Amino acid sequence: MLATSDINPAITDPVLASMNLLNEVTLRYPRALSFGAGRPFDGLHDVEASLALVRSYVDREAAATNRRAADLMNQLGQYGRTKGLIHELVAEMLRNDEGIEVDPDSIVITSGAQEAMALCVTVLCGRVEDVALAGEPGYVGFAGIAKLLGTHLEGLVLDGRSMTPRLIRSRLTSLSDRGRRPRLLYCNPDFSNPTGRRMSLSTRQELLRIAEDHDLLIVEDSTYRYFSFDQTELPSLKSLDENRRVIYSGTFSKTLFPGLRIGYLVADQAMQSADGPYPLADELSKAKSMFTNNTSPICQAIVGGYLLEHGCSLRAAVQPKVEFYRRNRDVLLASFDHCFPRGETWTDGVDWSTPDGGFFATLRVPFEVDHDALNESAAEHGVIWIPMRDFYLGPGGESEIRLAFSSLDPEQIREGVRRLALFVRSRVLGDHPGMAGTRSGAVSRT
Amino acid sequence: MLATSDINPAITDPVLASMNLLNEVTLRYPRALSFGAGRPFDGLHDVEASLALVRSYVDREAAATNRRAADLMNQLGQYGRTKGLIHELVAEMLRNDEGIEVDPDSIVITSGAQEAMALCVTVLCGRVEDVALAGEPGYVGFAGIAKLLGTHLEGLVLDGRSMTPRLIRSRLTSLSDRGRRPRLLYCNPDFSNPTGRRMSLSTRQELLRIAEDHDLLIVEDSTYRYFSFDQTELPSLKSLDENRRVIYSGTFSKTLFPGLRIGYLVADQAMQSADGPYPLADELSKAKSMFTNNTSPICQAIVGGYLLEHGCSLRAAVQPKVEFYRRNRDVLLASFDHCFPRGETWTDGVDWSTPDGGFFATLRVPFEVDHDALNESAAEHGVIWIPMRDFYLGPGGESEIRLAFSSLDPEQIREGVRRLALFVRSRVLGDHPGMAGTRSGAVSRT
Repeated sequence: MLATSDINPAITDPVLASMNLLNEVTLRYPRALSFGAGRPFDGLHDVEASLALVRSYVDREAAATNRRAADLMNQLGQYGRTKGLIHELVAEMLRNDEGIEVDPDSIVITSGAQEAMALCVTVLCGRVEDVALAGEPGYVGFAGIAKLLGTHLEGLVLDGRSMTPRLIRSRLTSLSDRGRRPRLLYCNPDFSNPTGRRMSLSTRQELLRIAEDHDLLIVEDSTYRYFSFDQTELPSLKSLDENRRVIYSGTFSKTLFPGLRIGYLVADQAMQSADGPYPLADELSKAKSMFTNNTSPICQAIVGGYLLEHGCSLRAAVQPKVEFYRRNRDVLLASFDHCFPRGETWTDGVDWSTPDGGFFATLRVPFEVDHDALNESAAEHGVIWIPMRDFYLGPGGESEIRLAFSSLDPEQIREGVRRLALFVRSRVLGDHPGMAGTRSGAVSRT
Repeated sequence: MLATSDINPAITDPVLASMNLLNEVTLRYPRALSFGAGRPFDGLHDVEASLALVRSYVDREAAATNRRAADLMNQLGQYGRTKGLIHELVAEMLRNDEGIEVDPDSIVITSGAQEAMALCVTVLCGRVEDVALAGEPGYVGFAGIAKLLGTHLEGLVLDGRSMTPRLIRSRLTSLSDRGRRPRLLYCNPDFSNPTGRRMSLSTRQELLRIAEDHDLLIVEDSTYRYFSFDQTELPSLKSLDENRRVIYSGTFSKTLFPGLRIGYLVADQAMQSADGPYPLADELSKAKSMFTNNTSPICQAIVGGYLLEHGCSLRAAVQPKVEFYRRNRDVLLASFDHCFPRGETWTDGVDWSTPDGGFFATLRVPFEVDHDALNESAAEHGVIWIPMRDFYLGPGGESEIRLAFSSLDPEQIREGVRRLALFVRSRVLGDHPGMAGTRSGAVSRT
């Protein structure tokens, strides 16, 4: 029998435990409507049709490179180049969609954006004194891998309203004074997971200045960047990056579909060697060879085929999906208006965000939410969401919840918000298991 | 500009550097015949045909589980269960092919066997005092990930002839005395990479006793296990494992093809919790969620379809491949006999192994081999191989080379050995770049 003390202590850290709780709660209450996971809507992709893209990729690549199609097809079955096969197509896509110019050799194709984060932390925070910084509230996958790898991790609230550059600079200085070395700052500037907010242009510029002054690299997670609801967009950190301070991370999980497990990193930072400079991507790729050897060439070919069929630009191709999610966002906001009527006692202190893009909205409630509250909501009201608390490393988010509006259809969203309102109402009016006596009466009222 | 001192010091470790050298040397000398990488032969798989297995998997699973095929197909496009989709099929295969009985819930499907190793080291050697042990000469992928993760690593020569149990036990005791905690022993008992040798039954039994006495877990890498040339096999460590000391690791890279990136772990060790025991696989799966989130369900479906079409047994299905590699082995040995004729001065001290299975043979030469020798062989004689030195953590293998006979056809093997003999002859007779004067004459003689 193995004890917890036999394994990596990070495995039982609340960050990793919360990832698991989320999976469990959905399995435990399979009939509950789930605003839990930021999964794309099932009906927006066609897995079987996508398999034909393998042939399409092979034929087009063969024509473009004057190679035999049979050889290319065969190569998809082999161990591939560690940095990937579709780096040139991704570079072309970044040029077309983002105005980012990068050498294809500075791109590493990864097993999803999650592996991209694992590589950055492993390679850039490999010394005891190294510190990884995470914008908070932030994606648990970054905090999770940093903790698992034993990296010293600090949270920084980067949000446009509460971030003050002076505060961030003083945190960095204080870390350095204590012998720590802040190396990497992870953030998610566009329609972030979990808040759905967009980082302002001035914050973007300030972050780049801070990175330059404090010899820091920024990992820009662009997962939701394509999903802007108002047709406007702010420049990515990478496109503003004059001093190669930004490692850009992307994924095809939301633009195509997650089952491909295809993400990528742009790491064009110059490394010194006797033979001249080479990109940081080469070092990240060495680490990758030890994590997963290389990324499935078959899944890469599906993405490659898709890119080739769409002129290496996803902006137009992804529009029907953007419209679907915008409609979901609108339904969500209308449902909030309808189910949390202003002026009622129990809706006092209820408030929500109006996301301009992405998959997530937040709801503020007039009580503290934790995993018990989530379980009660799932069991008694049939609706699942995530406590915002789970996305903070320090204090914060105590009475907020994250709602992913991406994987439900409009009817389910309406019903989900109705159930959510019943949960909030019962909590506020005292009808929850912890408050015996008032319970049955409140139930009859709801 | 980033300096080497800015990144994880393990990245420049010789173990990781040697992995890179191998890739580079093949690219640098594209016309050289390569005995370098243990890649399966290209002509033994059909990537395009394998895509149809996705539909086959979905239809059969739908029939067996009474689910809608469209739902199952769709689910392949989503984030999947972290531990995988095809765990039950893999459990059935282990029962049929190996006589190993395991709960499917103790299986984690991984992004190749490489990820399986990363998970074991991360979860089981997560404390400063933990030590990973590696049988040597051994697979560089295990040593590489252990070093990259900053895990204290020790090599143990486990080979049937030179291993003495008393020596291993005293190494373990001495580590414990120094406050270290030996946690994990990696080995590759069947037709190991790099030696191609098989571990004897008595060594297997002894290793299990040592693991039990020293509270050690063994990671059994079964990569080449199916490739036995004489139709005999020894029981796997896992099938002899009465005390759940063995984590079994497998891959479909050689039996199907590597581009799928599908491997698996069996970790049925019991963990304690308040709700009762649960398998170690659950903890490994938490770590997996932070490395790659989950393994591509599409690639899993290809493997699943293949398993279902072959009654969840690979033994018979893999026979044509085994025969191909056996023939290659025979051609290799005959070529050695022919090209290194006994009785010549320059073949004094030349010797080779007779592998009973797998992809690798070793050749002993009467001089020391290093990366310079490899470059000379590739550049001047057009043949690539790997110095055995690269597979040792401590001293060893100085005048041996590893030859992978898996990715060439018989004609290429004959020509490759002919070139190899020219290289050896020129080295022994003094015709190499370091020895001016004798060179041109020697060239005309060879």
